[in-house]
Amino acid sequence: MAKEDEVSNKQVIFRDYITGFPKETDMVLTTRTIKLKVPDGSKAVLVKNLYLSCDPYMRGCMTKKLDGPNYIPSFIPGSPIRGRGMAKVLDSDHPNFKEGELVWGMTCWEEYSLITMPDGLIKIKDTDVPLSYYIGLLGMPGLTAYVGFYELCSPKKGEIVFISAASGAVGQLVGQFAKIMGCYVVGSAGSKEKVDLLKNKFGFDAAFNYKEEHDLDAALKRYFPEGIDIYFENVGGKMLDAVLLNMRNLGRISVCGMISQYNLQKSEGVHNLFCLITKQVRMEGFLVGNYFHLLPKYYDFVMPLIKEGKITYVEDTIEGLDNAPGALIGLFTGSNVGKQVVVVAHE
Amino acid sequence: MAKEDEVSNKQVIFRDYITGFPKETDMVLTTRTIKLKVPDGSKAVLVKNLYLSCDPYMRGCMTKKLDGPNYIPSFIPGSPIRGRGMAKVLDSDHPNFKEGELVWGMTCWEEYSLITMPDGLIKIKDTDVPLSYYIGLLGMPGLTAYVGFYELCSPKKGEIVFISAASGAVGQLVGQFAKIMGCYVVGSAGSKEKVDLLKNKFGFDAAFNYKEEHDLDAALKRYFPEGIDIYFENVGGKMLDAVLLNMRNLGRISVCGMISQYNLQKSEGVHNLFCLITKQVRMEGFLVGNYFHLLPKYYDFVMPLIKEGKITYVEDTIEGLDNAPGALIGLFTGSNVGKQVVVVAHE
Repeated sequence: MAKEDEVSNKQVIFRDYITGFPKETDMVLTTRTIKLKVPDGSKAVLVKNLYLSCDPYMRGCMTKKLDGPNYIPSFIPGSPIRGRGMAKVLDSDHPNFKEGELVWGMTCWEEYSLITMPDGLIKIKDTDVPLSYYIGLLGMPGLTAYVGFYELCSPKKGEIVFISAASGAVGQLVGQFAKIMGCYVVGSAGSKEKVDLLKNKFGFDAAFNYKEEHDLDAALKRYFPEGIDIYFENVGGKMLDAVLLNMRNLGRISVCGMISQYNLQKSEGVHNLFCLITKQVRMEGFLVGNYFHLLPKYYDFVMPLIKEGKITYVEDTIEGLDNAPGALIGLFTGSNVGKQVVVVAHE
Repeated sequence: MAKEDEVSNKQVIFRDYITGFPKETDMVLTTRTIKLKVPDGSKAVLVKNLYLSCDPYMRGCMTKKLDGPNYIPSFIPGSPIRGRGMAKVLDSDHPNFKEGELVWGMTCWEEYSLITMPDGLIKIKDTDVPLSYYIGLLGMPGLTAYVGFYELCSPKKGEIVFISAASGAVGQLVGQFAKIMGCYVVGSAGSKEKVDLLKNKFGFDAAFNYKEEHDLDAALKRYFPEGIDIYFENVGGKMLDAVLLNMRNLGRISVCGMISQYNLQKSEGVHNLFCLITKQVRMEGFLVGNYFHLLPKYYDFVMPLIKEGKITYVEDTIEGLDNAPGALIGLFTGSNVGKQVVVVAHE
């Protein structure tokens, strides 16, 4: 292979395992070189990354897993951050992928990635939508919202729905799906700007800033005088404890994430689980990775809604790999407004 | 009504609301009189109580309910303890019940009870079993085990089942149902005698005394090297926290009770709920009162098993209302072995 095939490849390298809050300096920018050709017989795919996704679950990958919960592999110190992205195929030795095709799925935080096991990549057929949606509304967060709300909660018209982290990549969709379903929808978020978005852009019936509530139980009693039928859990900890006190009989809790707990050495204790009995509540955790067979069904549902303008999606877009570490860290201080997207290249 | 209709009626009176562990002196024996005739037009039923049930949920009735969880009404200070019993109808003004019939359902801790709203009483058709079974194996605990295991957990042959408080009124049945189903079954209990029962009488594959385990997580890893598919939760607190760490992917937790928490001013915090996500666990609380429509189905299932000797049931029987307060208190120190029954009269 000729030397001239090599190009420079900027990367975001994971430095080492951490405890507590992640910092930008846990990641290092570096530039290596890469050949833009796939080795013959490798069944690999070489992609140019266009959009990279910052997701809360990635905090878990920054901790060394021992024999405990291990739902997604840890990052490898010294290697690029792994995450979901939207990319363009530059070269392929895999029969399913051809040069020029657009894909989304697991990639790395770098300009170009050699994906040696590309079977999990999903080809993009519909380009009549913003391509960044394939790491958000039409990607993992979108399917997460769909599965966690419809499949796990079996919502009914008129039910009362509460969503925490409601302006995030997943929450903003759950709220809109619930409104489409005819539910009464309240969301919590961490700033006035986000609360305004919930009410004015996403059509929530009500919303509040949890940081302004000293007593979450009292806040929930104010917003849900009749209680909560469905809680879409993104935060865990004290909010979950308060929600348990305010669930209605036969309520359902879809446990999607617990971002308030990810940077703690020990998770906060949840004290009100006895309410699961007294209110006959079902609480169910899920991993969207087990539901990718529902992606076609989800697209059939959501594509028309997008094109008819009945679903909106707010992204917080940052340009350039150099800004990617800060964007990821920002998730844990809530500095993003909407889905956090990193643009690596526009095409 | 003639004076001679009156007989003496020994009662166990609830003294007043409590906090912390209940004591025998929270209940007072007294003797009043009662007419053994139902007032005309009252639609009431007068019963002679034969067997009374001591159940862990009754601790919750000794606390004054405010606006919190309120799944069963509190006892009324100065009135007899309310609970489930098996009784004989002495007189009836209700079209569904006749003198001489046997019934089970809510009654009071006294020799004779005037039941003014008898619609919830269930008539006993099959007397070819020990009649005390109607407050245990064929009563609320039996239906609880059936519903909590079969309806909520959807067990499959070969799955790995863990039951806490496994020798109790409910647990001993869940274990036997799980063995009949072809599951691998382990139980925990609080004494050597109970552990021996689990292994030698109820046919559990293994059992351990949780009081001898300083590290519940380590104990569970020893008994469940491959993890737990189904956990039948009777105790809550530290055991639940350890179980969460040891659940298998797509596990199910049937939340029946949390007896370790009932006498605490504040429930222990549960820290490992994030495992619900990583292992995709469903955790569901239930109240058997919502499942009485399944009683005929349960009887169809369990009656043949009893008559073929394929189900056994261990009762801890105490004679006399005088001993009832001690029997109820004993549930919370684990002094009962098997279902705690109080015999008021033999017929």
